[in-house]
Amino acid sequence: MRILGVDPGTYNMGVGVVDGSADAYALVRLDVLTAARSEPLAERLRALYDALLACISDCRPDAMAIEEPFVARNVRSAMAVGQAQAIAMLAASESRIAVHAYTPRQVKQSVTDHGGSSKQQVREMVSALLNIPSADLPLDASDALAVAICHLTASRAQDIVFLE
Amino acid sequence: MRILGVDPGTYNMGVGVVDGSADAYALVRLDVLTAARSEPLAERLRALYDALLACISDCRPDAMAIEEPFVARNVRSAMAVGQAQAIAMLAASESRIAVHAYTPRQVKQSVTDHGGSSKQQVREMVSALLNIPSADLPLDASDALAVAICHLTASRAQDIVFLE
Repeated sequence: MRILGVDPGTYNMGVGVVDGSADAYALVRLDVLTAARSEPLAERLRALYDALLACISDCRPDAMAIEEPFVARNVRSAMAVGQAQAIAMLAASESRIAVHAYTPRQVKQSVTDHGGSSKQQVREMVSALLNIPSADLPLDASDALAVAICHLTASRAQDIVFLE
Repeated sequence: MRILGVDPGTYNMGVGVVDGSADAYALVRLDVLTAARSEPLAERLRALYDALLACISDCRPDAMAIEEPFVARNVRSAMAVGQAQAIAMLAASESRIAVHAYTPRQVKQSVTDHGGSSKQQVREMVSALLNIPSADLPLDASDALAVAICHLTASRAQDIVFLE
């Protein structure tokens, strides 16, 4: 199963594509899509949306996994997260792939076995699981890969339950 | 000038199209776009996005005006507003029309001369300004028409400043 993980932002959108087999993960792509900081919000959203559609068309993932925070620093940052999430979900829906949402805690738990891990700890584990030097992993892309791995782990758990 | 006002929501999206001349407003269209409550969020966003693109293509507005709240009941509702705004802004950007954002206070001030008016008071004034029975105005559509009128008022004020 191939999963596109997305770390949503309205300036930078982390994307990580991971193939998951019975006992291993393989990196397909990691990228941080960016929009020009000088552009108005509507133009930035369009640039990120178009880049995400192109990524889905290139990599042909089976599903998208995305972080769904329940807390935010303030209303403004919550709205920005909502805006970025919507662009990602719309790109998935237009491409006819399902979207699965996970809380930051679920994502951290699935890669580090601890829901309170730091971004750096998540990066270290993603780097080890996918066998990429952690210095080559931007934090946004590392979070995107982590949510993709989280979905693969969750799907596997569901498969086991289903097969029993 | 023809303005498409949008009251963003992830279930119901109010849209109101208004033509503004030197001294009058004319209603072009009012509608509440809806998405099936049983559908997942990504599908609802796509349904609203597609309906909004169709509305822009039919009515050919010169610009979009949208409410930009700075407060929200909680993080969840702020994210939902952000999601709905993003869909509207993306539809505008894909259709190559500009987006202008106004706070709820600016919108109320421009139609009722008072920034703290109730939704019902806004509806009464919108109904009077556009000469439509207020019973025919759903609240979501009335807010959308109000933000369109707010942009027409603001543009006119800017014109006067520019001509002096």
